[in-house]
Amino acid sequence: MAFFDDRLAMPDIYGNDHRATVENGVRAVKLDPTVVMMTMAAATTHLGLGATYSTTYYEPFHVARHFGTLDLMTKGRVAWNIVTSMNDSEAVNFGRDSHLDHDLRYDRADEFMEAVLGLWDSWESDAISCDKASGRFADPNKVHRLDYAGQYFKTKGPLPVPRSAQGHPVLLQAGSSGRGQRFAGRWAELVFTSYSSLEAGKKQYTALRAAVSAAGRDPDSVKIAPALHVIVGETSEAAAEKRAMLESLAKPIDGLTLLCEVMNVDFSDRPYDQPFTDEELANVSWQSFRDNVIERSGKKNPSVRDFVEISKRGTLNDQMVISGSPTEVADQMEAWHAEACDGFVILGSVLPGSYEDFVRLVVPELQRRGLHQRDYKGTTLRDSLGLPKPEVGDRPSPSDARRPG
Amino acid sequence: MAFFDDRLAMPDIYGNDHRATVENGVRAVKLDPTVVMMTMAAATTHLGLGATYSTTYYEPFHVARHFGTLDLMTKGRVAWNIVTSMNDSEAVNFGRDSHLDHDLRYDRADEFMEAVLGLWDSWESDAISCDKASGRFADPNKVHRLDYAGQYFKTKGPLPVPRSAQGHPVLLQAGSSGRGQRFAGRWAELVFTSYSSLEAGKKQYTALRAAVSAAGRDPDSVKIAPALHVIVGETSEAAAEKRAMLESLAKPIDGLTLLCEVMNVDFSDRPYDQPFTDEELANVSWQSFRDNVIERSGKKNPSVRDFVEISKRGTLNDQMVISGSPTEVADQMEAWHAEACDGFVILGSVLPGSYEDFVRLVVPELQRRGLHQRDYKGTTLRDSLGLPKPEVGDRPSPSDARRPG
Repeated sequence: MAFFDDRLAMPDIYGNDHRATVENGVRAVKLDPTVVMMTMAAATTHLGLGATYSTTYYEPFHVARHFGTLDLMTKGRVAWNIVTSMNDSEAVNFGRDSHLDHDLRYDRADEFMEAVLGLWDSWESDAISCDKASGRFADPNKVHRLDYAGQYFKTKGPLPVPRSAQGHPVLLQAGSSGRGQRFAGRWAELVFTSYSSLEAGKKQYTALRAAVSAAGRDPDSVKIAPALHVIVGETSEAAAEKRAMLESLAKPIDGLTLLCEVMNVDFSDRPYDQPFTDEELANVSWQSFRDNVIERSGKKNPSVRDFVEISKRGTLNDQMVISGSPTEVADQMEAWHAEACDGFVILGSVLPGSYEDFVRLVVPELQRRGLHQRDYKGTTLRDSLGLPKPEVGDRPSPSDARRPG
Repeated sequence: MAFFDDRLAMPDIYGNDHRATVENGVRAVKLDPTVVMMTMAAATTHLGLGATYSTTYYEPFHVARHFGTLDLMTKGRVAWNIVTSMNDSEAVNFGRDSHLDHDLRYDRADEFMEAVLGLWDSWESDAISCDKASGRFADPNKVHRLDYAGQYFKTKGPLPVPRSAQGHPVLLQAGSSGRGQRFAGRWAELVFTSYSSLEAGKKQYTALRAAVSAAGRDPDSVKIAPALHVIVGETSEAAAEKRAMLESLAKPIDGLTLLCEVMNVDFSDRPYDQPFTDEELANVSWQSFRDNVIERSGKKNPSVRDFVEISKRGTLNDQMVISGSPTEVADQMEAWHAEACDGFVILGSVLPGSYEDFVRLVVPELQRRGLHQRDYKGTTLRDSLGLPKPEVGDRPSPSDARRPG
């Protein structure tokens, strides 16, 4: 599947200015991902298509309807990446003064999911009959209103979108902080994550599967996929040269811009080596990102320099990188896959280029080893991922509020 | 252009139940129109594409970004139909208890437009340079934040979507009540309207153009197009037969369902001939619809029967119908066009069928008379409609709040 992240603002926290972002093209352009996705859907027949939409600034009815329509029209090829939004730049684009606290964002997101999944259960699979003789369109006993009323969200339903070929869109999620990991454990069908090393990855893989079990679900029913840069060349030398070229492209300002964005802190005036206080660290928006820097620096109170040098944000090395010849890349991917994940999210390290290289050089080698499909297993994204098709009412941790009436 | 209306709930006010709606297929299914539109965009090269999105339940930043992306990716073929939402069924899907008052909806919509147009002016047309040698993506002096702060909406910007080939999407609007007509006069570039007769149409055409003038704009810069059913056959007799068949399909419950929806009143328990009180009429949501029934019935307080029989809601005759042979249809369209409109919104009276019939039988006759283009005039929707391309800052009734900073 192809998958698009999202952000609802340009990075402009560093120096309270978007100029560096625009000048250096640091995600100054961020198109609405579902529009891009639908264009790709029209040009493909089997490719799964995932897009990020926020639970913080959209409404459950809109997201349920928008993704329900996307899934219906692609005959079941869509995934929704569930996020809570991250920083004040997004908040002020949506009329708020500042973004919501971390745990409150997830409490709201839990309700958001209950509402969306409830709305997706409005139509039973066989509700529509289209009987010309009687003029009967559908069976009214098979279309349900929801009457969801939570603390943060209310929605009545029914959704005016019939059930898709795969039941509903696949649920993608990237929560990896404590509260976020509980959220992923409850809702995710495919977890998009980030590993800093094979050892750290094995721990996270175990922890994520435990979070799924703790939510009363079968951990084998959830797929876990870390982000990965793949720099592949015909030979080791060609790959190393390509990697060095890519590493040379990042400017220091790119990382500063992108660090302030995810931390929701403007440190443009701050001395480079001044440790962040406990209170400042408590307010960092992306908690698992912060915790990773604290752990790997061995410092309770890291500085800007620690965040820059350890996270490597804004450079090729801000995520796992595997580089080398096709067999070298396949060897490493095979090792990771054996111990720490069910698949990968291959990043667009350079576009165009990365995906062409991967398909041309790595996929044949993975196929030779029986680690990559030779054809699609079916027609829906759930078929491709080996995920079960949900039936109406078949939802994780049901509560009475979400039962169709 | 093709154009999709929208509604954010199934019709379920009649009897507080969606069962009749589902059973009879009275708009029980309403897909997200922008998804459908993007699919059509991928299959066409010149067709203009319009979709409805609500100013009542969405956020300006989302609508600006979503339609900005649509317009960018279609190289300038998109229109946005600006609506205020209509009834309590929609309100309760979006967490509200009841829908907003008519004039308040338009006051909010005015601010919504100021915010959206301001966001669409974030990027100047020539901002992007993509200079590989310097790594410079765009000129930071040509990308502006907005800092819009109204009474109902706030949004900072800049929008992370560059300017499209036609400047920004064409603004479509259907306001025809007093307050709605002022709104259309201020913002609309293409007015979608509804005439009950040629005489009424001439009056409305004059009034709409006067509303545009009153807003300080050139009335020739706005196109006005009434809804029209066209039932055409190879001969008058074939058309009459088709029309009779279509007229026979509507059931009484269809009209009752659709009347309650637009009036936002459940009259399922009400005696058919009991006049609505002044207070009840004051609360009817769609004011121009109500006023039309009052005027044509000659009754200050019409009953359910009057609404059913005069509006003909839910039947073929709820809008203007022109039927006959190709030359008969063209004669009538030519007469309307000469006196009361700049074009038409041809309704999908029966799908598939209506548009095929129109293109096959009526378009050649209109082309013969020089009343229909033989080819597209350019590549954008504005080229097709003969509308000017707006420049940054070139907006109706500017206020300081909307100037790029």
